[in-house]
Amino acid sequence: MTRPTSLEAGGPCSIARSLTVLGERWTLLVIREALLGRTRFNEFQAALRVSTDILGKRLDGLVEAGVLERRPYREAGHRERYAYHLTPAGRDLVPIIAAFMNWGDTHLAGPSGPPAQMRRRSNGAAIEVALLDAEGQRVPFDDVECVPGAGASEARGGCGAA
Amino acid sequence: MTRPTSLEAGGPCSIARSLTVLGERWTLLVIREALLGRTRFNEFQAALRVSTDILGKRLDGLVEAGVLERRPYREAGHRERYAYHLTPAGRDLVPIIAAFMNWGDTHLAGPSGPPAQMRRRSNGAAIEVALLDAEGQRVPFDDVECVPGAGASEARGGCGAA
Repeated sequence: MTRPTSLEAGGPCSIARSLTVLGERWTLLVIREALLGRTRFNEFQAALRVSTDILGKRLDGLVEAGVLERRPYREAGHRERYAYHLTPAGRDLVPIIAAFMNWGDTHLAGPSGPPAQMRRRSNGAAIEVALLDAEGQRVPFDDVECVPGAGASEARGGCGAA
Repeated sequence: MTRPTSLEAGGPCSIARSLTVLGERWTLLVIREALLGRTRFNEFQAALRVSTDILGKRLDGLVEAGVLERRPYREAGHRERYAYHLTPAGRDLVPIIAAFMNWGDTHLAGPSGPPAQMRRRSNGAAIEVALLDAEGQRVPFDDVECVPGAGASEARGGCGAA
């Protein structure tokens, strides 16, 4: 296997592997801010009120993981800086963020309703996360089970994590 | 506002609030194991190879958050113990786990394919996570944006987190 040690440590499960890249609170909040359109270090920092050190590490980690990419920019009178843009892999995180948002809206909502929402850019329609089967039919959550897959024998019986 | 301080610290955003409950690597792996049907402490521990101390804290936290519930059981010759079962709120986490699984399958998959999969219990059909608009139409990920919602004025301009 040629996968880097840092991913191997997550075990063979795709959830564990994803958490190796994403499984830290600030990381997903950085992704949220990127989806809100923020690209610059000071924009992320103002929105998240996180230390320069932690934010820098999270942005670096997401660039290394291929979720964000750096693009240089220069404002008049300033040195060149980098902005952070979502890559296609980063944009594929939308369902994760949407699923967290839906769950929080349902189970931890404040008195005034959801503080943010996802909508369709092209027509403003509200968006929800759904599970679909191969025929496009919606699957109720209590009709879902998790079973070992083709790669389950790679190590430690499938879903065993590090 | 009557929400507990521990949730307030997550800021007003539903994502940040959800991460306050779920935003730790082991927590989501415990949920994954619960979806795989594990209910007993030693089953979780054997699958996750996590310390007794960390596992106990994560299970207690998920019970407190209303995601798992304890149910007593007794095996012949042993004292009464507790098993951990998903509550309805816990079962509502299926899309989050499914979204992590899909992303890992797509972007971090091993050479033998996905080590686990979600399927429909009633007929074995494969399941995928999709975003739907109000008319049930699938929404491409790059047509999604995040905007302030009704509760955005509660604190610090909406999506600003702690």
